[in-house]
Amino acid sequence: MFALTILGNNSAIPAFDRNPTAQVLQTMEESFLIDCGEGTQMQLAKYKIKRSRINHIFISHLHGDHYFGLIGLLTSMSLLNRTQDLHLHAPPELEQVINLQLDLADTHLSYTLHFHPLTEETVIVQNNKILIECFRVQHRIDCWGFLFRERRNLRRVNAERARIYEIPAAFYEKLQQGFDYANKKGSIVPNEEVTIPGPRPRSYAYCADTIYDERIAEKVKDVDLLYHEATYLKDLHERAAARYHSTTIQAAEIAKKAGARKLLIGHFSSKYEKLDDFLTEASAVFENTELALQGSCYMI
Amino acid sequence: MFALTILGNNSAIPAFDRNPTAQVLQTMEESFLIDCGEGTQMQLAKYKIKRSRINHIFISHLHGDHYFGLIGLLTSMSLLNRTQDLHLHAPPELEQVINLQLDLADTHLSYTLHFHPLTEETVIVQNNKILIECFRVQHRIDCWGFLFRERRNLRRVNAERARIYEIPAAFYEKLQQGFDYANKKGSIVPNEEVTIPGPRPRSYAYCADTIYDERIAEKVKDVDLLYHEATYLKDLHERAAARYHSTTIQAAEIAKKAGARKLLIGHFSSKYEKLDDFLTEASAVFENTELALQGSCYMI
Repeated sequence: MFALTILGNNSAIPAFDRNPTAQVLQTMEESFLIDCGEGTQMQLAKYKIKRSRINHIFISHLHGDHYFGLIGLLTSMSLLNRTQDLHLHAPPELEQVINLQLDLADTHLSYTLHFHPLTEETVIVQNNKILIECFRVQHRIDCWGFLFRERRNLRRVNAERARIYEIPAAFYEKLQQGFDYANKKGSIVPNEEVTIPGPRPRSYAYCADTIYDERIAEKVKDVDLLYHEATYLKDLHERAAARYHSTTIQAAEIAKKAGARKLLIGHFSSKYEKLDDFLTEASAVFENTELALQGSCYMI
Repeated sequence: MFALTILGNNSAIPAFDRNPTAQVLQTMEESFLIDCGEGTQMQLAKYKIKRSRINHIFISHLHGDHYFGLIGLLTSMSLLNRTQDLHLHAPPELEQVINLQLDLADTHLSYTLHFHPLTEETVIVQNNKILIECFRVQHRIDCWGFLFRERRNLRRVNAERARIYEIPAAFYEKLQQGFDYANKKGSIVPNEEVTIPGPRPRSYAYCADTIYDERIAEKVKDVDLLYHEATYLKDLHERAAARYHSTTIQAAEIAKKAGARKLLIGHFSSKYEKLDDFLTEASAVFENTELALQGSCYMI
């Protein structure tokens, strides 16, 4: 599983039942929370996403519609007696906000919160399952995008051929990892005889609030799913630029230049009740576009 | 109109679609927001309560379930280009939290925010329509209750009698204010001839998170509607005391000792899905009790 669920897709002010930004990337192993606008903890409950699977939270920047729900989520996790560590990747100044609010409430979290300040474009999470990098986008204040890339090079076992060689099922995991099999008689079955290459690793890039910036396309090159903000329709490109936001067309241009497989647009301005035109405009430039709809889950 | 709408009635963690604490007291002139848990701005929209009628916000204490929605509301008001002044009555330390969050977002509010720190039991708002006082309640950290008292001494015009004396309708407002009427012939119609005393001023007391404390009954003596927290059912009185909260019975005892006309209980613990027992237990001690239900409006 490598699937993205949208918890909030609106910009600035909640409107038309659209919540401020929050997303969850769910993998087989865990869930990654990306931005955390007000009401995120209620949205997690509504869409039945387990808080206990979240070990990492990523905050793109310190505009409220991207983080005002964080302190509520952190304290609720504590009230529910969470014990497992939590890692927070965010602009450095957020630590002060959190500590101040905890101090004033005389609250001590039940778990260890590791604060990882975002200061340079680098790998921020790395294990044998996933690699996560942060990269700069261009907004009114410091703002970050996040690139998630699966790390899997497991091969697929051809069970029919494995049976011919009398390889026990207990050894399949080793086969997936590329090991050859030595049978009882001492002869070797080469791994390639009984496996084929596994699927290519999947990837997801989240481009939070940003003005149109072609450098982003380089940073998210060949990504499977690209989320790019599209706060305004194309006619408001001047307003978009003035406010360090993007239009439908600009998001689609980045997807095209990046060679993304699919584009997801969101962070819609509260001035728009209907979103149809967002899809029409972006699709005209980059066909495989979808709207980031609240409660929808996008398989990658 | 003197009516209370419940926007959130749960304690600590949102649960069972119950939001953290927030209430609005609506009068003919304006609306008063009391506490502002996460999601309050969405609840205001849901229940069609105009943000523009809110000139005063009261925060009882700095536990998150009573104020984490404030910064979102304040910034949304600014994004909507509010110009009228806003008055915030809250524990002194809240100012630092707000200013820090505004600074980090590089946000300047479009309106003037007047911060009124709560430091002693006193009158905090006073005009010809209403008088609002704060009083201490006993919680784990500094915590305040609020008492709202109407100031109206308008008399009621007996229209039938006023017609007999040929008093024009344009003069009725003066009659309500207690003026006598001088007719064209120069004779005086005494005010008491054509009016009766108006209804007595109404009052509402909000007792936020507090341990059972009989002194509160004195502070809210004879109030029309008393909101008192009842986080737990009566069997958990030890847990209630340990956490500086109250039970159903204790809330009802305060209402009885205060001689309140009606009691509203809320701030229910997330451990309870159903609330029926809350009503049963409290009503046994103080009959005129109601549950504070989200979205319900209680006329005073």
